[in-house]
Amino acid sequence: MAKELTPRSENYSQWYNELVVKADLAENSAVRGCMVIKPYGYAIWEKMQAELDRMFKETGHVNAYFPLFIPKSFFSKEADHVEGFAKECAVVTHYRLKNDPDGKGVVVDPDARLEEELIVRPTSETIIWNTYKNWIQSYRDLPILCNQWANVVRWEMRTRLFLRTAEFLWQEGHTAHATREEALEETEKMVNVYADFAENFMAVPVIKGAKSANERFAGALETYTIEALMQDGKALQSGTSHFLGQNFAKAFDVKFATREGKEDYVWASSWGVSTRLMGALIMAHSDDHGLVLPPKLAPFQVVIVPIYRKEEQLEAINEKVEEIVNKLKAKGISVKYDNSDTKKPGWKFAEYELKGVPVRLALGPRDLENGTVEIARRDTLTKEVVNLENIDQYVADLLEEIQKTIFQKAFDFRTEKTTKVDTYDEFKEVLTNKGGFILAHWDGTPETEQRIKEETKATIRCIPFDGEKEEGTCIYSGKPSSQRVLFALAY
Amino acid sequence: MAKELTPRSENYSQWYNELVVKADLAENSAVRGCMVIKPYGYAIWEKMQAELDRMFKETGHVNAYFPLFIPKSFFSKEADHVEGFAKECAVVTHYRLKNDPDGKGVVVDPDARLEEELIVRPTSETIIWNTYKNWIQSYRDLPILCNQWANVVRWEMRTRLFLRTAEFLWQEGHTAHATREEALEETEKMVNVYADFAENFMAVPVIKGAKSANERFAGALETYTIEALMQDGKALQSGTSHFLGQNFAKAFDVKFATREGKEDYVWASSWGVSTRLMGALIMAHSDDHGLVLPPKLAPFQVVIVPIYRKEEQLEAINEKVEEIVNKLKAKGISVKYDNSDTKKPGWKFAEYELKGVPVRLALGPRDLENGTVEIARRDTLTKEVVNLENIDQYVADLLEEIQKTIFQKAFDFRTEKTTKVDTYDEFKEVLTNKGGFILAHWDGTPETEQRIKEETKATIRCIPFDGEKEEGTCIYSGKPSSQRVLFALAY
Ligand SMILES: [Zn+2]
Ligand SMILES: [Zn+2]
Repeated sequence: MAKELTPRSENYSQWYNELVVKADLAENSAVRGCMVIKPYGYAIWEKMQAELDRMFKETGHVNAYFPLFIPKSFFSKEADHVEGFAKECAVVTHYRLKNDPDGKGVVVDPDARLEEELIVRPTSETIIWNTYKNWIQSYRDLPILCNQWANVVRWEMRTRLFLRTAEFLWQEGHTAHATREEALEETEKMVNVYADFAENFMAVPVIKGAKSANERFAGALETYTIEALMQDGKALQSGTSHFLGQNFAKAFDVKFATREGKEDYVWASSWGVSTRLMGALIMAHSDDHGLVLPPKLAPFQVVIVPIYRKEEQLEAINEKVEEIVNKLKAKGISVKYDNSDTKKPGWKFAEYELKGVPVRLALGPRDLENGTVEIARRDTLTKEVVNLENIDQYVADLLEEIQKTIFQKAFDFRTEKTTKVDTYDEFKEVLTNKGGFILAHWDGTPETEQRIKEETKATIRCIPFDGEKEEGTCIYSGKPSSQRVLFALAY
Repeated sequence: MAKELTPRSENYSQWYNELVVKADLAENSAVRGCMVIKPYGYAIWEKMQAELDRMFKETGHVNAYFPLFIPKSFFSKEADHVEGFAKECAVVTHYRLKNDPDGKGVVVDPDARLEEELIVRPTSETIIWNTYKNWIQSYRDLPILCNQWANVVRWEMRTRLFLRTAEFLWQEGHTAHATREEALEETEKMVNVYADFAENFMAVPVIKGAKSANERFAGALETYTIEALMQDGKALQSGTSHFLGQNFAKAFDVKFATREGKEDYVWASSWGVSTRLMGALIMAHSDDHGLVLPPKLAPFQVVIVPIYRKEEQLEAINEKVEEIVNKLKAKGISVKYDNSDTKKPGWKFAEYELKGVPVRLALGPRDLENGTVEIARRDTLTKEVVNLENIDQYVADLLEEIQKTIFQKAFDFRTEKTTKVDTYDEFKEVLTNKGGFILAHWDGTPETEQRIKEETKATIRCIPFDGEKEEGTCIYSGKPSSQRVLFALAY
């Protein structure tokens, strides 16, 4: 079949690239590094957005919108930030084209050069803190709890659909607080929201923790992260929340009158997740037949396919399906009935398998006689014939069951692929032959981290929040350590 | 009061500018021509988006996302389009900054010049039709009914918040069809969706019609529009839907195999509304006290303010209000209870008036005794005291009533401000002294239209769909005409 995928065992990376395109999720565009998110892929992203947006609002946040462009000089204001972000970016230098004097097409008008170049935002801390300066005078103006849904651009040389693209979609929260404690609380609250979303909607188990200094966001004092494990044993950073201290307030001179009548700089957090989550979702669950989607994020949860030879059989099936569709919809289940006559059932089965529709119902003349229907689960690829009475409750229960099963499968995989090691030899051996998460003692220095990275490509994904305190010695330097940290090869 | 607005009668334009800023809708940013949409303004835009998105999906459309950047050469492919759009735009020429060799800040890296410049999309026909080329082989692949919610940039020298900004938010639908008829039907369907939205959600009456050739979208064979009338007698184009014929299919070589086994170019439509609608909403209804919002688009429909002297009074009021809030929420009404103790009731009254909250409830100790509440309507500024029993139904009915009243008021205003004229003298006289919509005969030539525009600044807003056929003579040239067209000064 034309849409057959390269098996994961053969070439995981190729399997991913083929899956994204063949399941109609996204494709490369004419602009290097920029993707087109196709309707089926975008429908999944919209479901993610809706849930996240609800969670943000339930935790007191509001949405706003800030400019796409940032004056070049803004990047120089926060020293670490400029190192991290002002380098590979899209630079707008002119604001006009004109007809080519040679008569062919259009050229940039040299007279329309901007006095100061504009950068297409790679992240918006600078422009937002420059704005907050005017919004904040007193403690009464705090906290500010803004989020923005936006596109951002980071020029990347090697891109992969959803995982690393020059332009991507994301949300970025930017909050301002009167105290250090409150900003830290916010930073932690939001990494918890992300973890909740990843586990309960994406069905992807994640490890929450703090980044080491090396891996922190440019300009942050702390970066909290959720780290997920993909089927090839590599980690994917899936969301980050940053405690920015007073760095941006100082860079943009944002002071406020405290409740005690003093003056202080404002405390900040920022946090974001992006279309990269689509990559995590795809890689965490899918198989050689295609996508496997958790029911809570599937554009449609159930597809119904009629099996028939004669036109009058189809008519009878259509009638019965209408009943079924109404019953399912009344239970809040999204359904697609595909009775198009240009494709055979076998083609449809493969297509919806590829697209990861959680549940498939197939209905033929014999089912009508018997009052039954064939139900297939996408996650286990199992089928059974069930009675049509109470089909709505049956499917509702099954969807819940699938959501749980998918999570449990990913959880068990991660458990199996998490290894505690106590020596550097063991570390390298596990990294090469087994992959996955490795829990090991580290002496806490950037130097050791850097050497391990250079020698093995493994990075510290995080210092887990719920890691047990355990005395030990660093696998690399032999120096003392009080907690194991999480290493892995990563996307 | 610090937030008092310049009256409309004194300076309408200043009234608008002040209102947008003081009601916390939007403000100018550090980037010339780019606005910050503040949380309260963005909440209104989100309500608009939600309704429009629902309407698009109910009419069979899906969302997708296409790149922010468009290769410069794409603009030269459709001759009219390049004239209309490739001129005032943001041009990306470089993809990297580097540390200034002189040690101060960052500079553009001259080695990182793009081979072909990228244009920040002013509209996406070109990149989308370049993409559709790969999606369409046969009539079976049609229609394609995609919409995208996105930011676009058109470099503007004179900008005004919401009405004309360099960057703005919008949706752009781009559809592909097998036949001319189907593409035309789509074009008409979407202008009807826009009119439905404007009238039934924004409470803004609109005239639907076709643009004259001069005013068409660059590259379109027909542009349909909805035109609204603002309180200063000027028209605001509020949404457009374009029949693009086969122009973009030809420019990007998008052919398909027809049902009859022949080959043909694909037919296209595109349609969009933007954050400009915010300007229309603000200007259509608001008064010298501030915003007036239709209940269907208000971030919160009801605000409750407690009136008290002593703490124990507030406690009793809090308890009663909790009951009221629950009852209102159960009816799907959004409510804010403002019992903050840092502001006086008078300040709150003015603030929520300024922000256009449709209904205000005020509750004091005497109300508790009597089982009553004071209800104030924002649209009429009237107050009454009503019984608390059935307050939920009372408020629900009142919100419906307000939605209707606001629409009717705008409708009556437009009726009063629409004038039929039969001579050019009369035309100029009405334009100068009364303003508003002017219905007049026109000979159908671009030359006459252009001269009238040069002499009076008035433009043909549209050739109304439901204009009665009526023989007459052009007010300018005296040549025969078969229908009156709609003239006005416009934003
Ligand atoms: Zn297969
Ligand atoms: Zn007033």
